[in-house]
Amino acid sequence: MNRQELFAQIKKKGSFLCVGLDTDIQKIPPHLLREEDPIFEFNKQIIDATADYCVAYKPNIAFYESRGIKGWESLQKTLNYIPKEHFTIADAKRGDIGNTSKMYAQTFFETFEFDSITIAPYMGSDSVEPFLSFPDKWVILLALTSNPGSMDFQLTKDANGTELYKKVLETSKQWGDADNLMYVVGATRAEYLTEIRQIVPDNFLLIPGVGAQGGSLAEVAKYGMNQECGLLVNSSRAIIYKSSEDDFAEKAQNEAKIIRMEMQDLLDKYL
Amino acid sequence: MNRQELFAQIKKKGSFLCVGLDTDIQKIPPHLLREEDPIFEFNKQIIDATADYCVAYKPNIAFYESRGIKGWESLQKTLNYIPKEHFTIADAKRGDIGNTSKMYAQTFFETFEFDSITIAPYMGSDSVEPFLSFPDKWVILLALTSNPGSMDFQLTKDANGTELYKKVLETSKQWGDADNLMYVVGATRAEYLTEIRQIVPDNFLLIPGVGAQGGSLAEVAKYGMNQECGLLVNSSRAIIYKSSEDDFAEKAQNEAKIIRMEMQDLLDKYL
Repeated sequence: MNRQELFAQIKKKGSFLCVGLDTDIQKIPPHLLREEDPIFEFNKQIIDATADYCVAYKPNIAFYESRGIKGWESLQKTLNYIPKEHFTIADAKRGDIGNTSKMYAQTFFETFEFDSITIAPYMGSDSVEPFLSFPDKWVILLALTSNPGSMDFQLTKDANGTELYKKVLETSKQWGDADNLMYVVGATRAEYLTEIRQIVPDNFLLIPGVGAQGGSLAEVAKYGMNQECGLLVNSSRAIIYKSSEDDFAEKAQNEAKIIRMEMQDLLDKYL
Repeated sequence: MNRQELFAQIKKKGSFLCVGLDTDIQKIPPHLLREEDPIFEFNKQIIDATADYCVAYKPNIAFYESRGIKGWESLQKTLNYIPKEHFTIADAKRGDIGNTSKMYAQTFFETFEFDSITIAPYMGSDSVEPFLSFPDKWVILLALTSNPGSMDFQLTKDANGTELYKKVLETSKQWGDADNLMYVVGATRAEYLTEIRQIVPDNFLLIPGVGAQGGSLAEVAKYGMNQECGLLVNSSRAIIYKSSEDDFAEKAQNEAKIIRMEMQDLLDKYL
C-alpha cells in the first residue's frame, strides 16, 4: 500500500486508528479455547468488529512466534483474513546485517505479505536498507519509544546536544523518504512531537501507547498531524482486552468506535 | 549452561569457536535438495563434522523464519540435534517492551531451549531484563557490531566523549552480570577491545566477523581474552560454505580444525 492509498483510507473512514493484535492465549476469553485455532478465532472476531473503525492492524510477532509452528499458522490465517484496504504492520523490531535483513524482509513482505515492519536502528544503514527496496512496502523505524527503558539510550545527547532519537531521524531520512519510511514515536512524549515534525515533516508516525501505555490523542494530533494526517495511532490491549467475557468483540467495537469518533473530530479540526 | 560449564568446554576442546548456522537453501549443495528437510540435513552434517572443534552453534534465526513453518521445523530439529555440551545461541536480535520481550524469552529459552539470544539495546532496560531472569540462560547484547552501519549510531559520542556502544556496556552491566550477560563485539575493531575490557573485564564477548566479515583471531585473543577465555569467536560462511559440492562437510571440518588449532595455541599462550 502506498502513501496516497493510506491517506485515502484515513479520509474515507475518518480514522487513523491501528488495532494491535497482541493476542495472548492466556488473556482471550476461555470459551475460545474450544476452537481449533483460538488465536485466529479471536483475531477474526476482533477484525470483524473493528474493521470499519480502523485503517491498520499490527500483529505483535512475539505473541505468535512464542507459540511455535501453530503460532505462525495463526499469523498467516490472520493476515489472509485482514481486508485488503487495511494497512498491515509486522511489529517485529528486527534489524541485522544486510544479508540477514534481506531474509527478514522476504519473510514479512513476501511470505506474509505485510505492508510494513518495525525495525530497530542500532545497527545502522545496511541493516535497514534491504527493507526499503521493496515497492510499496514500508520500514517503521524505532525513534522514540514509550517504555521506561527508552530513557537509557534514546535520549542520550551527543556533543552538539542532539538526542540519539533525533540523530536516528536525521540520519535515516537519507536512506528513504516519506513513501517508504515511517517512525515509531511514543505517545507519552507528545511534547517532543513538534521537534520531531521539524526533522521529518512528511513521514507517517506510528504512535503506540494510546491506551495501556498512556498518552493523549488530542495532544498527539495537535503536535503530530501533517497535511496527509501522517499519523497512525495504535491501541492494542485497551481495545482487544476491553472485555474478557463472551462480549469481547462487541466491547472492542465500542472502544474502536469511540476512538474513531475522536479521530474524526481531530481530522476535521486539523486537515 | 553456566559460565563454569562453558569455560570447562573451552578448555577441554582447546577451542572457543562458534559455528554460525546461516543455512540458506540457495547456497547448500544441490544434492541435498532431494532430502525431505534439506536445511536440517545440511545442519546435521555440519554438526557431525564440526562438533569436536567448536563449543557453540549459532543459528541465524532469519534464515529459518524466512522459510515459514518448515523453517521453524528445521530449527527445532537442529536444536534437538546439537549435542548438549554445546552452547547454543539464537541469533535473533530481538528487543521490545517488557511483556513482549518476555514472550520472545519464552520462545527461545523454553520452546527451543536455546542457552542464549542476541538482543538489540535500543529500547533499554525493560526490553532486556525479561531475558535475564531465566537461570543459566544468557542475553548477548549488541554493543559494537562489525557491519558498515555500525558507524551510524554506535560510535556517536555523548557530551562526555563516550561512544554509544560504551554507554551500552556501562549501563547494561547494571542489569546483569558476567553470569547472564555477554556482548557482541565486531572483530574488525580489535583496537577497541582493550577499552571494552576495561568496562566489562569478566563478561564473555561474542565476536562475529572472523571469516566472511574479516578480522584477525590473534588480535582478538591478544586484546580480548580474559582469565576464563571470555571469548566466543563466530565463523559462519567461511566454514559452512567452504565448499558447495558433495564434500561440504569435510571441507567445513577442515576449516574448523584449522581454526581450533590456532585457538588452542592462543589459549596456551594467554591462559
